Amino acid sequence: MTHTYALATEGSGSGRGAGGYESVAGGNGDEERLARAGLSRVVEPGDVAALKAFEGLLPLEIWDRLQHNAPDLERWSTRLATADPHRDLERAAAAGARFVIPGDDEWPADVEVLDEAGQLSRRAGVPFGLWVRGRADLRHALTRAVAVVGARACSSYGEHVSAELSAGLADNGLTIVSGGAYGIDAAAHRGALAAAGTTIAVLACGVDVSYPKRNSALLSRIAEDGLVVTELPPGCAPTKLRFLARNRLIAAITQGTVVIEAAVRSGALNTAGWAEQCGRPVLAVPGPITSRMSAGSHLLVRERNAVLATNVAEIIEAISPFGTNLTQPARATPTLTDTLAPDLQRTLDAVPVRNPAPTDRIAIAAGLDLPTTHQSLQTLAGLTLVTQTPTGWRLTTPEQQPGTW
Amino acid sequence: MTHTYALATEGSGSGRGAGGYESVAGGNGDEERLARAGLSRVVEPGDVAALKAFEGLLPLEIWDRLQHNAPDLERWSTRLATADPHRDLERAAAAGARFVIPGDDEWPADVEVLDEAGQLSRRAGVPFGLWVRGRADLRHALTRAVAVVGARACSSYGEHVSAELSAGLADNGLTIVSGGAYGIDAAAHRGALAAAGTTIAVLACGVDVSYPKRNSALLSRIAEDGLVVTELPPGCAPTKLRFLARNRLIAAITQGTVVIEAAVRSGALNTAGWAEQCGRPVLAVPGPITSRMSAGSHLLVRERNAVLATNVAEIIEAISPFGTNLTQPARATPTLTDTLAPDLQRTLDAVPVRNPAPTDRIAIAAGLDLPTTHQSLQTLAGLTLVTQTPTGWRLTTPEQQPGTW
Repeated sequence: MTHTYALATEGSGSGRGAGGYESVAGGNGDEERLARAGLSRVVEPGDVAALKAFEGLLPLEIWDRLQHNAPDLERWSTRLATADPHRDLERAAAAGARFVIPGDDEWPADVEVLDEAGQLSRRAGVPFGLWVRGRADLRHALTRAVAVVGARACSSYGEHVSAELSAGLADNGLTIVSGGAYGIDAAAHRGALAAAGTTIAVLACGVDVSYPKRNSALLSRIAEDGLVVTELPPGCAPTKLRFLARNRLIAAITQGTVVIEAAVRSGALNTAGWAEQCGRPVLAVPGPITSRMSAGSHLLVRERNAVLATNVAEIIEAISPFGTNLTQPARATPTLTDTLAPDLQRTLDAVPVRNPAPTDRIAIAAGLDLPTTHQSLQTLAGLTLVTQTPTGWRLTTPEQQPGTW
Repeated sequence: MTHTYALATEGSGSGRGAGGYESVAGGNGDEERLARAGLSRVVEPGDVAALKAFEGLLPLEIWDRLQHNAPDLERWSTRLATADPHRDLERAAAAGARFVIPGDDEWPADVEVLDEAGQLSRRAGVPFGLWVRGRADLRHALTRAVAVVGARACSSYGEHVSAELSAGLADNGLTIVSGGAYGIDAAAHRGALAAAGTTIAVLACGVDVSYPKRNSALLSRIAEDGLVVTELPPGCAPTKLRFLARNRLIAAITQGTVVIEAAVRSGALNTAGWAEQCGRPVLAVPGPITSRMSAGSHLLVRERNAVLATNVAEIIEAISPFGTNLTQPARATPTLTDTLAPDLQRTLDAVPVRNPAPTDRIAIAAGLDLPTTHQSLQTLAGLTLVTQTPTGWRLTTPEQQPGTW
């Protein structure tokens, strides 16, 4: 290995006027930004061996040791030979993207929860930085953000619900974060865009890679009105492990994860698992038990204590600080007849709808004595619930009542 | 009031060969059976005043005091004047029904839980007896029984699910108890009958009354293959309060209540409330959040700790003694690649599907050093997951693999 990244370790990189990265690499941050960009190329997201080997070292120290072929870092030598953080920053800039690192105003500090989550699982770890495309401020956009994820091969029910809930959440000022995939993800992004809200696509590939292909127009629109984010440097293709690593970011940068439709074995359940590990609430939207696509949502509720979510208010309640934004469970307002004393209810229940009945017949039907029945009928008449006719009592028809009860 | 029921209080009623009730009124039980039949006519189900006035008295004592016009029982005098338990027992017998009371072999002692539930709510109380139509033995049929209830105006999804789950539960030897109403109830009964299982309709009217009218053929079939049960004497019409009182019986005589579809204000939620008070598990079947008919089910899960139920096994688990009949949560069996060590997974992830790549390219894609990559590829080849070609490595196509993984 001959390439030693002299510029990166020796200099600030200023003076490279052609590169676009200086616009975001603020002064003293340049060295660290280059080191982090290099590491984001060399170290695969969620590389357990890296988490262990680099423990306690700062990015600049890691990068420096990699440049000097530290023998214990031999594992990463192959990729290091091809890494060129200057070029990556230039490629990103050419694609309208920037590389956001800790210390930047935009850096979403919430993602550092993955440092703790790393204790719990093999694939955690805070990203070295985030490649970000779009005009919005990343940190600001994530102040109130919820992940909406689910199956690629979703049903039309799932697609509808994803778009509707996302639009409703966006209407309430929440940023919709998803994975840019077909199905539930795409519907979530579209719902947020339709509501003129902010949406963020977190990718498992480079910020300049259109994957999946058929979503490239959507991704362009997201980059225009919202943000496209990834920890992978430009040009990277998605892989199975990168999808899994990407899911941890979606869970970490949001205040909660909503699973709309998910098969029992799915990326959405993986994201839900990350949300659990990050201490974020997981919400699951139910669906028909006849649909395999809802099996994952139901499993989350049954086995993993996810909150069953049926509307926007319930999602907002779950991701809000405890005791705020509480929902009022849907409950019909009690009708007047619900509040009647038992004897009045029973008398009313015994009064015929149409053909009037005398008091004694009503008493028998109600199972009450005559004086009680008589008294009850008088009270009910006062409430205009029953009407006396020459041949007895019958219920007051709605049009005879003074108002709706 | 002149009618004093001389026969009922003085004699056994034996010798009245024409009446059918003797066939079930075993010897000494006759007097008590007559008293209880009379009380079932005089006292409306769930009459709070009756529960209070009769507290601590045996049915024979209550009946005797009513006959003798005890001044504190004046409230029930109107109905008493029309009561004729002999005639009611005869009418029941003519309709192929019997009157089952405590002490009978058939008496389902579980219903006495309502004695305790009476402490909690206004409308409880153990019925004086149960009017039963059908050949099956009531107690035996209720040994393993589950209530399946829901909306009258259900969706086709609800109707389908009600029939399917009920058939599946019946296949597992469970008796399906429901209310004989349109919609979910009717589908539950039909599902059980279709599976040649036992089903019980608990009515809010006389055992000889066909209500609702359009279900009369269904009720006849239930009476033939299962049982029709009510606490109301023959000829009684259903009323709103009788439906509510009936719901407590459905909850009390079953080991759990399954709500399929229910509006937020519905009889099914009332039944669920009774099940809660009786200490029986409540299960709710989810549905689309876009359907108002599933709102009640979702409310039960969110607000009232109901168990989300998506299949027969989950229902059986919930109503079985703790720790028995446990379900295995639906989970795909891990594939071989799930169990690979991290480096093997990453190597495999980096091997192209079709166009072979040399080891060094795979090492870069995987982010691993050459020796590790080489070793990993050898292991993966041994597992027949990758294939070596003259130009490098590619994934083994499924048809090349020796078996399915």
